[in-house]
Order: sequence, then C-alpha cells, then structure tokens
Amino acid sequence: MMTFEHLLASRTCHMEASAVREILKVATAPGVVSLAGGLPAAESFPLEIMEELTGTVLAKYGSKALQYDASEGFGPLREALVPHLAARGVATSAGNVLVFSGSQGVLDGVGKILISPGDVIAVEAPTYLGALQAFNPYEPRYVQIETDDDGLIPESLEQVLSTNPVKFVYLVPTFQNPTGRTLTLTRRKQVAEILKRHNALLYEDDPYSDLRYTGERVPPIKSLAPDNVIYVSTLSKTFAPGLRVGFCVAPEVIHHWLVIARQGVDLHTSTLAQALSAEYIAGGHLERQLPHILELYRPRQQAMLEALERHMPEDFRFTRPEGGMFVWVEAAKGMDMERLYHRCVERGVAFVPGKFFYVDHEDGLDTFRMNFTAADPETIDRAVGVIGEVIAESLTRV
Amino acid sequence: MMTFEHLLASRTCHMEASAVREILKVATAPGVVSLAGGLPAAESFPLEIMEELTGTVLAKYGSKALQYDASEGFGPLREALVPHLAARGVATSAGNVLVFSGSQGVLDGVGKILISPGDVIAVEAPTYLGALQAFNPYEPRYVQIETDDDGLIPESLEQVLSTNPVKFVYLVPTFQNPTGRTLTLTRRKQVAEILKRHNALLYEDDPYSDLRYTGERVPPIKSLAPDNVIYVSTLSKTFAPGLRVGFCVAPEVIHHWLVIARQGVDLHTSTLAQALSAEYIAGGHLERQLPHILELYRPRQQAMLEALERHMPEDFRFTRPEGGMFVWVEAAKGMDMERLYHRCVERGVAFVPGKFFYVDHEDGLDTFRMNFTAADPETIDRAVGVIGEVIAESLTRV
Repeated sequence: MMTFEHLLASRTCHMEASAVREILKVATAPGVVSLAGGLPAAESFPLEIMEELTGTVLAKYGSKALQYDASEGFGPLREALVPHLAARGVATSAGNVLVFSGSQGVLDGVGKILISPGDVIAVEAPTYLGALQAFNPYEPRYVQIETDDDGLIPESLEQVLSTNPVKFVYLVPTFQNPTGRTLTLTRRKQVAEILKRHNALLYEDDPYSDLRYTGERVPPIKSLAPDNVIYVSTLSKTFAPGLRVGFCVAPEVIHHWLVIARQGVDLHTSTLAQALSAEYIAGGHLERQLPHILELYRPRQQAMLEALERHMPEDFRFTRPEGGMFVWVEAAKGMDMERLYHRCVERGVAFVPGKFFYVDHEDGLDTFRMNFTAADPETIDRAVGVIGEVIAESLTRV
Repeated sequence: MMTFEHLLASRTCHMEASAVREILKVATAPGVVSLAGGLPAAESFPLEIMEELTGTVLAKYGSKALQYDASEGFGPLREALVPHLAARGVATSAGNVLVFSGSQGVLDGVGKILISPGDVIAVEAPTYLGALQAFNPYEPRYVQIETDDDGLIPESLEQVLSTNPVKFVYLVPTFQNPTGRTLTLTRRKQVAEILKRHNALLYEDDPYSDLRYTGERVPPIKSLAPDNVIYVSTLSKTFAPGLRVGFCVAPEVIHHWLVIARQGVDLHTSTLAQALSAEYIAGGHLERQLPHILELYRPRQQAMLEALERHMPEDFRFTRPEGGMFVWVEAAKGMDMERLYHRCVERGVAFVPGKFFYVDHEDGLDTFRMNFTAADPETIDRAVGVIGEVIAESLTRV
C-alpha cells in the first residue's frame, strides 16, 4: 500500500488542523452547548428574503450571475461596496475593491504574494488563529506585539518594527478575535504614525466592526494611514458566512499581485454569491437587517457578561467588549484551561482554550475564549454556570 | 510614494497574469467574436429552474445553506456525487469526496501540499494553462511528456518517470484543453500499468468528459489505477461555472492534507452553491439538462470542423475531438500565430495562440486553440472564415 507521505512538500509540515475546528467536532456532539465556535446565529440570516433576492438577481443579471467572471470581483458588487466602505471610514473606488472567497481568501493571497520562508510577520498576542493557519504554509517567523485592555501597545509595535525586518503587521483592531478588545482612537493615531515613519505595511482585518452593541464607532486605521494599510472585511457576519464573500482595499502593488495570485487559486468568487451580495447591499437589505442582528446579539452579550460576573471566581478577569462575538477570560495564574476544557465537554459545555491563539502554544494556558452569538441568553447563563462549577471543583481539589 | 514592491515574496516572480485572461480582455471588446475563451454558452445554464431550486434548497436545508460548513464539503453534495461519480467510472464513498471552489481549487491545493521549490512535475506538451498558473507559485520545474493524436505517448511517460524524480504527473486525458484529444483505452491501460510500476501519482483532470457529442465514453484512469490517481472534476460545464464547484477523489494522505491546507485558503466552498449543486444532481436536473447542453454544442462543434475544413490551407492539421470545448490547429511550420492573432483581432476575431499552453513559450508558435461552445454555428463559420483570410493574406505576402 502506497501512502505518498514521501511526496509531501516541505511546507506541508507547517500546516496543522485548526484546533478550533477539531474542538468544534467535539463541541457539535449532541447535547453539547458550544461557546467555542465563531458562528453567527442562524436567526441572524435573512432567510426569508433569499428566494426573492435570487429572483431579483436572475432578473437583473440573467446568465451573467452563473457565468465565469473577472478575478477582481463582480462589477455590481464592487460598486455596491464603495458607499458601504465609505460609511465605515474607508474612501475608495470600485476599481480598488477586490472581492475574495471569504476574508480567509485575502489572508491566503497576502501570505502567498508576500511571505518568503523565514520572513517576519508581526502579530498581536493573542491573535486570530485563522490568520496563522493561512500564513503558516508560506513558512514565516512571527514576532508578537504586546497588548493590554486597549488593544496593542504602540510602544511594543515601535520596538518590534525597530528591531525586526517585519514584512507586515497583522491586526484585528476592532472587537478582536479572540479577546473582543478594541484599539482606542488615540492608539490608532499612534499606530498610523508609527506605520508611516517605518514605511511599514499593515493588514487590518475588520470582520466585526458592524457588530457594535454600545458605544461609538472608531475609524479604521486605513482611514488614518491609507497608503500603508490592506483593509479587509467580510459579509459573513452581516449577511451569511455560507456565501463566502470577503473583500479588501489594498495598496496598488499588493492589489496587482493579489489578482494574479488568485487566478491560480480559484479564478474568482462565486458569481451568484457576489450578485446576491450586491443586491443585498445596494437594495438596502443589509442596512435593514443589521439592526435585527444587533438586537439579537446585544442581550446575548449582556447575558455572557452577567454570567461571567456571577459564575467566575473573583480573581478571574474578563474583557467587556462593546461588540463583536467573543469575550476573553483570564483565569487564575497557573490554571490549565485545556485540561478544564475536557472536563467541561464531559459536562456538556465547550469553549476554546486560549493557548491556541498564541504563536507559542506555551502562552495563554490560563486563558479561554467564549462566543456569545450562537446561543440564547438562558443557555449562555447555564453553560457559563457549568464552567464555573468545573473551575470551582478544580480549585477545591488543589 | 511607497510601492511595497520590495516586500514581494520570492515566489511571486513565478506568477504571471493568465495570458488567456489578458487575451480575453481584448477578445471581449465590443464587436469582437471570441473563439478564444473557454466559456460555456450562457444558453447551457438552467436559468429557468434557479429560483425554484433556491426555494427547494432553502426549504430543505434552511439556515444550514447559509452557515459555515465543513472544509470537506456539504454533506448532501458529497452524497449526491457518489452515484454521479460511479456513473462516470469512479467508485467511491461520500467520505472520500472533497468539494473545492472550482477544480482550480484542487490544482492550488495539490500544488500547495506537494510541491517544494525545484520539484519536478510531468505535464503533457501542450497542457492546461490554468494548471501551470496554479502550480507556478510553488516553484516547480516541469518536464514535458510527448503527445500525438491519441494523447500522451506511453513510452514518453515511461521515459520521463525513469529519468526524473517526478512528484506527480498532470494530465487531462479526455477532450484535453487545449487540444481536444482523448487518450485511447489501450493507452490508458498502459498509463495505469506504468503508474503502478513506478509507484507514481497522477493528477487526472476531467472537466469535459460529460461533453461527449459522438462515440463511446472511455473510462477514467482512476478506474484502472485507483490508488495512484487524484481524480478531479467540476460542475462548471454541466451546471454553471459561476457557482465555483469542483470536487476530487484522492488517495488518503493527499485527501488528509488537502483538507488541512484549504482551511487556510478559504475554509470551504460556498454552502449555498454546494446545496444548489446537491439538489441539481440529486433532483435529476443534471441528467435532464445534459442532453440539452449536448444538443446545443454538437452543431457548434460540427460547424467548427466544417469551417476549418473549408477555410484553412490544405497543409494545416486540426484535431477532430468527439467532445469537449476546443479544437487545436497546427498551422504551416514556421508560422507565427501570435502575430496573426493581433491581425485577426483587428478584423474582429479572437483565438488563443498555442505557445501559451507550452511550458516553454518558444514551443507551439505555429499552433492555436479554437473554442466552439461560446458562439453559434453561423458566427463560428464567419469567424473561422476571417482567420482563414488573414492566414491566406500572410501566405501571399511571404
């Protein structure tokens, strides 16, 4: 029996199954309440308009909605994204917008065109796991930028850029995955200045900023240093992730090579999904749907924060994000949250141990990520209660 | 003004814009009849059932059709592909089918997990341009396998495998792009034996075998050497390319790493596109639509062959495929078909100069590819007539 194991490329050993996805497999077992995933609630999808939306799209674009299309993206969607982006602080034109197969597609594309083996990428600690997964096959090294409750610490960024040949910086500045933290406006201005001073390139990943439940919108770093930033967002949280539609606005050279690279990867994103997205935005559906999504998630987030307040030991710290999908918990020092994860799953509740969000898996052992968008308030309270019990038991045993 | 040119990865210089796509840009100018592309006819799409199909899918799968899903593919589509593949000579189970974002996605995935810089890939001469584009960023070297009217020459494959450390062989054995040639059954058996003897891996790209206008179906090489073959096909020619749904059946190790690699690339293919595809196959729509597609294309192919017979000089040779989308023309020795391409475009007709389908662009200067699926018979005859005139004029001048 041949295995072809010997044929694998050297880069393949740098790939690993997404820990989150592996954990989700246990988490989706019958009877398990999962606070582990990053799924939007099924109730957030505009299911009731999909058939009509399809009819409109087919009437409007006919066979064009089913045909091959340009790698840059479906024209009407690129047009529709211009005012959408402008309302979010990103001034651009249709020709400068690129559509990808989810924002994951942009991560892969940027990794592909920029990372030579051994190149240095600067990331927050902790950072988004999916970004590491996209970049890892291109064999970079990582340096970590320190963070606190206000997001990354500008002095740490300055120091990282001064002492390392950094290819690009990767950040999720708003409602970060996994911490839910948002970089303050003051710090964004500092970051913009630092980027400009170092002629540095920033990958600004912004999937969550539309999911704001309280407080005021903060402008993207792209608006403060437009020439230095690849701005990336998605319709996965405000329309439907199953369409796989993400998009970016990038500096010219990056834009040029992203288009060429993706011709080899998937030619282009599903034309039908793009046409539906164009109509969803241009037809005003997104603006009508968003308030419903916020009303759905706001009490869930509230329930999560109250449950943590009620069920976690006093010395535990957790973030209180104004939006997004996640809350980050720092347990008592020395606690092994991966070990407790398995005990919680036995009791029917799942979360994600925080170590998986660090470049070095020895970090963050005493942290964990909780999602609050995929379960209703009562379930959240009950599930956090179970985690609290498991933690209390483990403390008693020690 | 920063350009960030200096940040590009070393692999990026191995990427190039698809010549076909660049040529298509000219070819899609108003008034140009394009025999250059590889587009299915818009009339081949089941446009009239799309709204109903969407309704069925939403009723059946609800929000699941819009949610994140497994990287391996949407369960009902993987199930539906089992009898679909069996009818085409590939015996498998749903768990062994992987769905990708077009068959291009499989090319990228296989390139990513198998090709280390400098590795040798064996390809037909000429070969599918999109495969080269997918593999090039992973920096392989290519060796060419010789071909004749019956497809690749087994003795050449034997020699290539005996004298080179080949990572894998890439073939389009049925109605090849660009030549339209089909490897005979006798040769398929020889290829299967050679693969087994060398413990070699074959990438069998099979997008066209459903488009057979005359003659008998030939079994895929996968059916003759199942353990040695990654079998890849698509719904782009029999449903709609704008859905971006391709699929593969691969040996276990390859299957395993393809799943992990694509988690970083795009997570998964559009769930909605997959659900529509599942219903299109399982609901019997594909089997009902396919005869219409064949009836649409058969006279177009006939028109192309008759027009070539009528308008090309006597010493020109061209293939007479029993199916697919392309005919390959070998002009008189020494003729520069790229030069004539520009003259033809000035006269309002486009094709693809053959050199772009060779690893070495010095090869195939006197060849060109003609598509017959995207234009009606009268247009095809008129367009081939124009090409014939340009050729005749160039011969007179010499």
